[in-house]
Amino acid sequence: MINIVIDTIGGDNGAAFTVKGAVEGTKKYENVKIFLVGHENEIRDYLKEYEYDRERIEVVNATEEISPNESPVNAVRQKKDSSLVVGLTLVKDGKADAFISAGSTGAILAGGQFIVGRAKGVKRTPLAHLLPTSAEPALLLDCGANVDVKPEVLLQFAEMGSIYMESVCGIKNPRVALANIGTEEEKGNAQIKATYPLLKESNIINFTGYIESRAIPYGKADVIVADGFVGNTIIKLYEGLSKMLLKELKSAFLSSFKSKLGAMLIKSSMKNTLKRFDASDQGGAPLLGLKGLVVKIHGNSKEGEVISSIRQCVNFVENDVNGKIIKGFEDYEEK
Amino acid sequence: MINIVIDTIGGDNGAAFTVKGAVEGTKKYENVKIFLVGHENEIRDYLKEYEYDRERIEVVNATEEISPNESPVNAVRQKKDSSLVVGLTLVKDGKADAFISAGSTGAILAGGQFIVGRAKGVKRTPLAHLLPTSAEPALLLDCGANVDVKPEVLLQFAEMGSIYMESVCGIKNPRVALANIGTEEEKGNAQIKATYPLLKESNIINFTGYIESRAIPYGKADVIVADGFVGNTIIKLYEGLSKMLLKELKSAFLSSFKSKLGAMLIKSSMKNTLKRFDASDQGGAPLLGLKGLVVKIHGNSKEGEVISSIRQCVNFVENDVNGKIIKGFEDYEEK
Repeated sequence: MINIVIDTIGGDNGAAFTVKGAVEGTKKYENVKIFLVGHENEIRDYLKEYEYDRERIEVVNATEEISPNESPVNAVRQKKDSSLVVGLTLVKDGKADAFISAGSTGAILAGGQFIVGRAKGVKRTPLAHLLPTSAEPALLLDCGANVDVKPEVLLQFAEMGSIYMESVCGIKNPRVALANIGTEEEKGNAQIKATYPLLKESNIINFTGYIESRAIPYGKADVIVADGFVGNTIIKLYEGLSKMLLKELKSAFLSSFKSKLGAMLIKSSMKNTLKRFDASDQGGAPLLGLKGLVVKIHGNSKEGEVISSIRQCVNFVENDVNGKIIKGFEDYEEK
Repeated sequence: MINIVIDTIGGDNGAAFTVKGAVEGTKKYENVKIFLVGHENEIRDYLKEYEYDRERIEVVNATEEISPNESPVNAVRQKKDSSLVVGLTLVKDGKADAFISAGSTGAILAGGQFIVGRAKGVKRTPLAHLLPTSAEPALLLDCGANVDVKPEVLLQFAEMGSIYMESVCGIKNPRVALANIGTEEEKGNAQIKATYPLLKESNIINFTGYIESRAIPYGKADVIVADGFVGNTIIKLYEGLSKMLLKELKSAFLSSFKSKLGAMLIKSSMKNTLKRFDASDQGGAPLLGLKGLVVKIHGNSKEGEVISSIRQCVNFVENDVNGKIIKGFEDYEEK
């Protein structure tokens, strides 16, 4: 049985979607047990609406809430009865393998590190995101959990990302690239230039060299390695620019009767294209390198993203991603 | 008279468009004289096609070409008869105020620094780009000329960008923001956190705080300050992602008869929207902080971008941007 904690507090859409996602997840994956953590009465009220296997959904009460506006570190230290702390403690104590939350990213990162703790040999724990591209989705890490990291840390990010992409997303021998401002070996800042030879020498990954940000949307790499500052800049620009361009096009479509008519005709084709760029189908953002899997889903997630994230956790555990990471780093230490 | 050098070698479209742009530029701006640098016979052949004021267009012969594949520094040192070196030397010798080229960015950056030289008090010379947004265009700098810079250098970038945006683009009291991965004061890497107080204290700029990359496409700042690594990542992702999304939408439009018909109806509205995102109307990318203005235009530029860049140079000289930059830095030194 794979044990997964779902935090029902913290998303923009209340507890209803997490409860629904949990119920559907247990139907889809028969080897999954889910702990729903949050306001017990509220969760039980939502559960009444469904038929479900009572052996595989357990409610755990936790009443404190962590807001995105408070200091993540203080919140994690002080709010012992928050859904985040209670849920992560289940992972720490070995009662659960994974934790899914739509709550504050900062608190999830802090809680993951302080409560669950790093896996053996892991220097830093990167936040990874699957980016939609015109080819297959690419895993970008670190998306903002760590800045000013050393080259050896970027090497670990590359290795963890590669193992995750192969084991959880099923990409064989993923192409790993290092985000840079040019593709020639002499390009880049000091951090990136010092990282290049380490990635080149690693025998855990299939390193394909530097990637410029303009090539990322075309799926030219499966795993993109970056310092958290650069990765966060990429992911947020990806999100902001896509939204802005679609908004501008929509208002262009509404600008005349003729274009409104045209927009009606292209609607279904456009929807199919945009669906490929829909994040909910790709699950959440995993925080890698911890003793268990911690997945951050969007604040505005619906049950679809919860179910995808359950699938992520199942793949993660069944393919023993952490075992592979620890093994990889041990081999590295021995060399 | 404002003297502008135009490099006719290096663009993807040959010398024809630069000659046409120069002729039209002298018609549009009566106080402009242009030096066309490159293969003399070729330039004169193109010039024969036009009526123009012979006092205000001068041909300067230069026969060597610099390719984007050679080392910029070596090329600038060795190819004394390249259009780039001959053209920039006209600026260095005070015979011209500005230089426009569609050639290799690396060579233009190296040539600008080695041949033209930095203006008094300037520590580093940033490459700036106007980014299209859903509001007004925003100036992003540095777009890749300098990496791993000190906070005092980012302060100068902010000040030069603000002066340029106000004097050349006519934006009063431009909002200057520092690119970061969060908007709270404690967010960021060491470089950015150390830069924040310097920008806050500067009395040359209207500093509005941090900006996250997701807010850039909405025009939330007029001047965006970044280290060259981050700025280059932003500009190239901006370009790559916009192109990829439009390509995907176009293929969606062609996917069925119904959507093809719809696409015909929305074509003109869409064109108007996309025109706002057309770089050619915004002129080239200025390399700031040199003794004269150096403007890099796209390799695939047409005459429209040449004419816009001539307007940039005219505004730059008429508004004494360099005088203001030097004065600003002197005031700062005195404090």
